[in-house]
Amino acid sequence: MKNFTYCNPVKIYFGEGQIEALKDAVPKKAKILMTYGGGSIKANGVYDQVMSALQGYDVQEFSGIEPNPSYETLMRAVVIVREQKIDFLLAVGGGSVIDGTKFIAAAAPYKGEPWDIVTSSASISKALPIGCVLTIPAAGSEMNCGAVISKKETHDKLSFMHPLVYPQFSILDPKTTYSLPPKQTANGIVDAFVHVTEQYLTYPVNSPLQDRMAEGILLTLIEEAPKVFQQPDDYDARANIMWAATLALNDLIQMGVPTDWATHLLGHELTAAFGIDHGESLAIILPSLLHLEREPKREKLVQYARRVWGINASDEKECIDLAITKTRAFFESLGIKTRLSDFGVDELQIPRLIESLKRHGMTSLGERGSINLERSAMIFRDALFGA
Amino acid sequence: MKNFTYCNPVKIYFGEGQIEALKDAVPKKAKILMTYGGGSIKANGVYDQVMSALQGYDVQEFSGIEPNPSYETLMRAVVIVREQKIDFLLAVGGGSVIDGTKFIAAAAPYKGEPWDIVTSSASISKALPIGCVLTIPAAGSEMNCGAVISKKETHDKLSFMHPLVYPQFSILDPKTTYSLPPKQTANGIVDAFVHVTEQYLTYPVNSPLQDRMAEGILLTLIEEAPKVFQQPDDYDARANIMWAATLALNDLIQMGVPTDWATHLLGHELTAAFGIDHGESLAIILPSLLHLEREPKREKLVQYARRVWGINASDEKECIDLAITKTRAFFESLGIKTRLSDFGVDELQIPRLIESLKRHGMTSLGERGSINLERSAMIFRDALFGA
Repeated sequence: MKNFTYCNPVKIYFGEGQIEALKDAVPKKAKILMTYGGGSIKANGVYDQVMSALQGYDVQEFSGIEPNPSYETLMRAVVIVREQKIDFLLAVGGGSVIDGTKFIAAAAPYKGEPWDIVTSSASISKALPIGCVLTIPAAGSEMNCGAVISKKETHDKLSFMHPLVYPQFSILDPKTTYSLPPKQTANGIVDAFVHVTEQYLTYPVNSPLQDRMAEGILLTLIEEAPKVFQQPDDYDARANIMWAATLALNDLIQMGVPTDWATHLLGHELTAAFGIDHGESLAIILPSLLHLEREPKREKLVQYARRVWGINASDEKECIDLAITKTRAFFESLGIKTRLSDFGVDELQIPRLIESLKRHGMTSLGERGSINLERSAMIFRDALFGA
Repeated sequence: MKNFTYCNPVKIYFGEGQIEALKDAVPKKAKILMTYGGGSIKANGVYDQVMSALQGYDVQEFSGIEPNPSYETLMRAVVIVREQKIDFLLAVGGGSVIDGTKFIAAAAPYKGEPWDIVTSSASISKALPIGCVLTIPAAGSEMNCGAVISKKETHDKLSFMHPLVYPQFSILDPKTTYSLPPKQTANGIVDAFVHVTEQYLTYPVNSPLQDRMAEGILLTLIEEAPKVFQQPDDYDARANIMWAATLALNDLIQMGVPTDWATHLLGHELTAAFGIDHGESLAIILPSLLHLEREPKREKLVQYARRVWGINASDEKECIDLAITKTRAFFESLGIKTRLSDFGVDELQIPRLIESLKRHGMTSLGERGSINLERSAMIFRDALFGA
């Protein structure tokens, strides 16, 4: 096991009816900016629950934070925070709203050009306090200090992390996810699944407990996913997926082990270039990445095949092939397409993706830094038609 | 899954050489009382590492915190804290030292009779900050806010919990455990194992992820334990046991599920009455408790048999019998005796244990409160000679 330092201060309120806890969790005199997305929270009753819990508070609103939250949109909120002297941000939504709110929290008190926060998070010295009401299990942003922000102008999609943007609390009520469109449910499950594989499918460092926690999350997602498509108001299945998605990226399972964020980083390029959904981008990249990186990941891939997919083949190559096939089939069972060609992308567009990776300094990805631009191009090419 | 609230603010520094982090973790101007036990930290070099990291700090010492830390001993430290205006406590040791230090932290600023903290923790409104250097993986106290304190005068062994006594940080260097006597290593493994069974072997509430995390900890302990007896300086095995013991009782795996602390509570009576080691007391109680509570715990016991012990018998009774036998055999493989009669206790002494349980108000234990005094007596009687 590798050395590590771990501290996660986020308070989680989990379960039915927990939105009421807002009145305990938010400081009484807070001047709140409530941030949200396209308004689905008004249709599903979450908005009303939040407003009811916050009766007596000074609450202003900022709506319209889009999937892949953009610098351009978020800077409009930064202006409001500064002008209105907002001192508490309440994000109500999924990973995009929470990530965007983390950027607002860091950008509002920032003296320089806030995009610098994304390219160099070290420059942050303060941030507004954040609370979250999560409505989409996916990103894990509700219990970590990372955020992914896009810049429309330059087609960039980049991440930053800083302890100052940990939410103070996050409320997870599985009932808020009943009304998610199936596509969003599916994208969220893929996102959480890939967060786990990125911390698990690397090389062995003798970390049996981290491995079993990772496998536990993957098995939970695999077993619970079909239930919510069959019955969207299956409380326990929604709850299990929600908690699994949070634990998939709250740092715990990556303590002491190597990590490989290449699937996310290559996926971000697909989203930035072609507007492919985040979850879809991961479902496209992961099978090809595992296929092409099978040698450096061999021992963990065999373990994944055996423990997660119950594959008993004695031949390791067969184990790995089957595990990749089953991974792709799982994503497709959720209604997610897994080939880049399904989105109208062809080989001629790959140089553009490679150029963008180069511009972002992403020239040595993977747990050993061995995924250079050439290997990234191979992964993109393989992902066009998959196996 | 049940509703829950979760927040664990403890910062963990894990791995070889992390004792050096003390100089970052302890406030520069702190007036420190370093608390420890019988002096093994002087023999194994931990004392020197701590003192070296704390060069330039004002450090006083309080040694002699015994296993099952006593009110009587700890109150001597409380006097020192008050007289010397100590403002930071550094616990260096295992669960007893850390538990005792939590009591000191709460008792020093307490206006009334400090034993009241143990019988009614609600009365605490402040506590000194605590840091820990863990040297025995066992209790989990390094990452939770609970403590178990004994009172010699009355033969009481009772626990209290309060968020104010979470350590600010805990340093876990697996190398500090190389020199543990085999008996202490074994007791610690049993303690961690039973912490998990108490959060796992109850009744099902559809919580597959919590179950798999619990099973992951149990399997890690079962697989890694023999390695450290064979080779006490096996770094990875020591590290895996250390991290497993911390995660066994840092609250995470009990979120959303029922818990049954009866094994610990009955075990405490054995320690208070007969001086039986804490780990031993658990190894004595657990097999008999599982045997007698097999019906209310049936579904989880069968799952435990299959997933943790790989028992494939189709008959549920046979599964459960085998799982209990294997549990006992695991404890005995560590050199731990598992029958109360092994410690010279006979049936005539059971009424005294029951009287003490009654005095402590422990008349309805277990996940459903169904272990009354009569059932506790049955468990003690069964534990005399086991199965």
